[in-house]
Amino acid sequence: MANSSSASEVNSSSATPVESKVDVLIIGAGPAGVMAANALAMAGVDVRIVDKRPTKVMAGQADGIQPRTIESYGLADTLLEDAAQLHMAAFYNPGPDGGLECTGRAPDITPTNARFPFEAILHQGEIERMFLESMEKHNCRVERPVVPKILEITADEKRLRDAEDYAVMVSGDFVKLQRLAPQPGEPETEIVHAKFVIGTDGAHSWTRKSLQIPMLGSQTEYIWGVLDIHPSTDFPDVRNRCAIHTLSGSCMIIPRERDKIRLYIQLTDVDVRDPESGRVDLGRFGPAQLLEVAARSFKPYRMEVKDGDMEKGVEWWALYSIGQRVAERYSVSDRVFIAGDACHTHSPKAGQGMNASMNDTHNLVWKITHVLRGWADISVLKTYEFERRKYAQDLIDFDKKFSKLFSIKPKIEDVVADGEDLVEGVTHAEFFEAFQTYGLFTSGIGVHYAPSAITSPTHQHLASNLIIGERLIPQIVLRGADRRPFEIQDLCPSDSRFKILVFAGLGEPVAPGAANAKGTRAKVQAERTYGRARKGTEMFDVLVVCMGKKETFVHTAVPEVFRPHWSKVLLDDSSAKKQIGGDMYKNYGIGDEGAVVVVRPDGYVGTVVPLEGAMEDLNKYFAAFVRRG
Amino acid sequence: MANSSSASEVNSSSATPVESKVDVLIIGAGPAGVMAANALAMAGVDVRIVDKRPTKVMAGQADGIQPRTIESYGLADTLLEDAAQLHMAAFYNPGPDGGLECTGRAPDITPTNARFPFEAILHQGEIERMFLESMEKHNCRVERPVVPKILEITADEKRLRDAEDYAVMVSGDFVKLQRLAPQPGEPETEIVHAKFVIGTDGAHSWTRKSLQIPMLGSQTEYIWGVLDIHPSTDFPDVRNRCAIHTLSGSCMIIPRERDKIRLYIQLTDVDVRDPESGRVDLGRFGPAQLLEVAARSFKPYRMEVKDGDMEKGVEWWALYSIGQRVAERYSVSDRVFIAGDACHTHSPKAGQGMNASMNDTHNLVWKITHVLRGWADISVLKTYEFERRKYAQDLIDFDKKFSKLFSIKPKIEDVVADGEDLVEGVTHAEFFEAFQTYGLFTSGIGVHYAPSAITSPTHQHLASNLIIGERLIPQIVLRGADRRPFEIQDLCPSDSRFKILVFAGLGEPVAPGAANAKGTRAKVQAERTYGRARKGTEMFDVLVVCMGKKETFVHTAVPEVFRPHWSKVLLDDSSAKKQIGGDMYKNYGIGDEGAVVVVRPDGYVGTVVPLEGAMEDLNKYFAAFVRRG
Repeated sequence: MANSSSASEVNSSSATPVESKVDVLIIGAGPAGVMAANALAMAGVDVRIVDKRPTKVMAGQADGIQPRTIESYGLADTLLEDAAQLHMAAFYNPGPDGGLECTGRAPDITPTNARFPFEAILHQGEIERMFLESMEKHNCRVERPVVPKILEITADEKRLRDAEDYAVMVSGDFVKLQRLAPQPGEPETEIVHAKFVIGTDGAHSWTRKSLQIPMLGSQTEYIWGVLDIHPSTDFPDVRNRCAIHTLSGSCMIIPRERDKIRLYIQLTDVDVRDPESGRVDLGRFGPAQLLEVAARSFKPYRMEVKDGDMEKGVEWWALYSIGQRVAERYSVSDRVFIAGDACHTHSPKAGQGMNASMNDTHNLVWKITHVLRGWADISVLKTYEFERRKYAQDLIDFDKKFSKLFSIKPKIEDVVADGEDLVEGVTHAEFFEAFQTYGLFTSGIGVHYAPSAITSPTHQHLASNLIIGERLIPQIVLRGADRRPFEIQDLCPSDSRFKILVFAGLGEPVAPGAANAKGTRAKVQAERTYGRARKGTEMFDVLVVCMGKKETFVHTAVPEVFRPHWSKVLLDDSSAKKQIGGDMYKNYGIGDEGAVVVVRPDGYVGTVVPLEGAMEDLNKYFAAFVRRG
Repeated sequence: MANSSSASEVNSSSATPVESKVDVLIIGAGPAGVMAANALAMAGVDVRIVDKRPTKVMAGQADGIQPRTIESYGLADTLLEDAAQLHMAAFYNPGPDGGLECTGRAPDITPTNARFPFEAILHQGEIERMFLESMEKHNCRVERPVVPKILEITADEKRLRDAEDYAVMVSGDFVKLQRLAPQPGEPETEIVHAKFVIGTDGAHSWTRKSLQIPMLGSQTEYIWGVLDIHPSTDFPDVRNRCAIHTLSGSCMIIPRERDKIRLYIQLTDVDVRDPESGRVDLGRFGPAQLLEVAARSFKPYRMEVKDGDMEKGVEWWALYSIGQRVAERYSVSDRVFIAGDACHTHSPKAGQGMNASMNDTHNLVWKITHVLRGWADISVLKTYEFERRKYAQDLIDFDKKFSKLFSIKPKIEDVVADGEDLVEGVTHAEFFEAFQTYGLFTSGIGVHYAPSAITSPTHQHLASNLIIGERLIPQIVLRGADRRPFEIQDLCPSDSRFKILVFAGLGEPVAPGAANAKGTRAKVQAERTYGRARKGTEMFDVLVVCMGKKETFVHTAVPEVFRPHWSKVLLDDSSAKKQIGGDMYKNYGIGDEGAVVVVRPDGYVGTVVPLEGAMEDLNKYFAAFVRRG
């Protein structure tokens, strides 16, 4: 359908191209790509992932992990072992004498219900390694270097409707002995027939270009430098995230793992323009010049590299100007998808890049998995663009406002720098207000998916605080039989299953009684109707959440249908020593009448329905995207 | 000095015995032994550990891990991954109709400041595996099967005073190729010359017998059975710890990992006595009989093995009667030590066995390490027996009371069973009161070491809640530079270092000022005086805890001497989002005047001294056991 290369290139390196089939081919092994490959491999999907680079990223690039991202993938323990944590943000502005002064400090993140109330900072290469190691356990490895050359999607409507059809063809130079030997060998031409292709091949995406999808948006005029160093400094907030407005440009500190810091440094025309030609000349800039600009901003504080050793002290640096663009479409024929930097670019300073990218594929992979298992209709894949393109647009709108506030000069009345009047600048109060306002969004916790085939807010009032279309709110709940406290998010992992949380309400003494049994039957029937479970690939996990007291609750009083295993019965009460947990009904806004909450496989609330007549409502919800068995 | 074997045995298997030297030889690779070997190997001590059994324990035996034990060794994460957790205890007694009734439920542990507010249950073999895997990283493996035959300690007082002297000789049948190949080979006679020997070789300790140390105490008349099963039951509290008093004997449930449970079953004379001869005949008893006795006690509830399959459903079983004894001495010449079951035996029902054993060697190993490094005088080793034998006596006193309360029949007025009057039995209220009273002790948290060379309570009033001689109370504290919350126990790991916590108090604005700088100098001087640090083996870690607010605190205002690294400055305030932490001074009972707290390498508070004149007091404390440099 769409391809950017000529057919004559196909056989350039081999006379007889190898042909192969795969359910999902992922092009590009950055964070979005390896996140997708890992999730698909864990779900048992037949998947391959290729990358044109011979090795993975070793330094620099993205490193901010937002609170919601930490929650999402079940890799929090591994991630937090090495990551730096940002708990506090500090704000600096010029004082009356022009030198930097701390204007205030505040929590680095604003949402009140973040399970991990901080940002984590870890080098992109380490994040990728986490996924690569997990993938390897499921026998999935990145094939590299692999250069794809042609991408074709069948135009046959009948084939496109059949999810089992290998409707996409990708050919190119693959490495020999792929999968078995990770070392690159002689390339050979291979033609891969895939049911689905995910292009996570970055800002200059070959996949996107092959599909001829334009990027919409514009480039800003601001030019920034980024510098990762081992610092030597007397700046008091060097281990906090800092937003620094100075008269000569803005600056940001991101503390990093192993005592390093990242500096984002705004460059002025004077810095980057050739004084003779008047043209922007980035070639004249190196880490020494960047550090010099930074050092000027930090006065009266000292900001140097450790031991004055630029060789050892500078880990990575780059210059960039901000493009704020989003792809016109996210998929073609619901067969080839683009995700991550391939479909949105924006400034790195709110720490969104890697998060937005991984969350794109997090949103996509369970849908592809359900389609491949024959559970979901192929039309469910349309919700990927619907949900994630809207998010990218919001992100870029936010980035425009925030970048501008950050890039313009501070407003300080009575201070005039270089003969320039500063009354048009941004005050600390304005900047801080924006920081707070956008905090829910930047943490990832405020992400809200609009109503669609998979998001049905009809009965929102039954769980007034648990917003349908948003992520499941963290909550400590007891396991009924042994009163062991668990985080409900840990009981609802991203494992391809829908979680049906049955809030039994105030039924018969402690346990849900006759009235609630209707709800019970409903869930079980839904499971039977749609489940068609193979071992390890159940479509549902049903958990019942009871009201009761830990001193008197008896899990064996819960109807047996809820107890295929004793661990499926939960109790809304505080822990034995009353230190954590309790008030789950209250925190979720669920009343004594109970409710049934459907949590999507990606951890977002799909719908809430009443206990009474739950079967009918659940049927209605699932009928919108599930194929009947 | 003392040996129980004849010299003629030495060369039984080899004509020319190998001779070798080692700093510490550990005999017996149970929990106490591997705990010691791991700690010594981690500290870089030259250590060997041998065991007479060809393989490690595979099932049954001890499995309860108390809250204090979870805190102690830095292995909590690994331990908690697989362990079952006991949060709730349930109490059952006969109801008016003779059938079991729940009399009440309560938290399984009573102390309010347990960091891990539950008991963990994990098979002894898994606990040992944790230590074995950690040891292996430090190139230390158990040599097995190794049968020691002769133990001799020099009688030369001068040699005994010299910690560098290989004053102990152990010879026996060792495995060839020891250390390199863990597989047992042909045994060969080896003579090991060790500076110190630790005998952790169990209740029938060869080491203890070699030293001719008698066990003091007595055997009880109660006979119990223990049975590990996969249950099939409708008993509501099968996942909680249960103390069950019935008219036909008592019973206890300990829920275990992977859905298993352990039953402790009291056996009556009728069960174990041969009806013809009238003699106790344990040979007639097997798991089926034990289960039958249990099933009788649980009526009206059903208690069976899963699928009725005794072959698969029963994992382990044993019969025992309780001996309550403690060794007369714990060491000979401060050169050979016994620890664990080798020096104390008691009933398993309060879950103390493995804990008491590991805590014995936890107490001992840092002292041996300090002596071997030339820091501590050899006399410090006397505190091992002083502290741990007292504890064992307390444990046995407790066990006598608790076992009796648990083994005698329930007192139920108006109920007469088998014509027997029950008014002399124990009421639920009496039993529950004992359960609560002893909770602080059984959790391990109440362990209190009396004043000695290493425990000096002179200035207790300066930290009124932080009891000198007890473990450091858990507390969340912020790292000053980045406001990241840490558990203070994690900042004071068992790594052979004394932790000097400088509570700077209300000095100059936020940071400790001129007055407190005296304290500063004191610590630094102490470090210089005693430290003689080699890389990785510092004797002290100094942390300063400041009063202040996270919004305004500036860690760079703390005198530089406290900041060899920015992470050494702590702040007593709640976390950025105010969710955890704060009130450390208050919780420890430390006032505005501050204090210096010395935490021993095993996590117990060694002393507290005033900031003012700290050097003199610290000198006095350390002079009692530290050799001057």
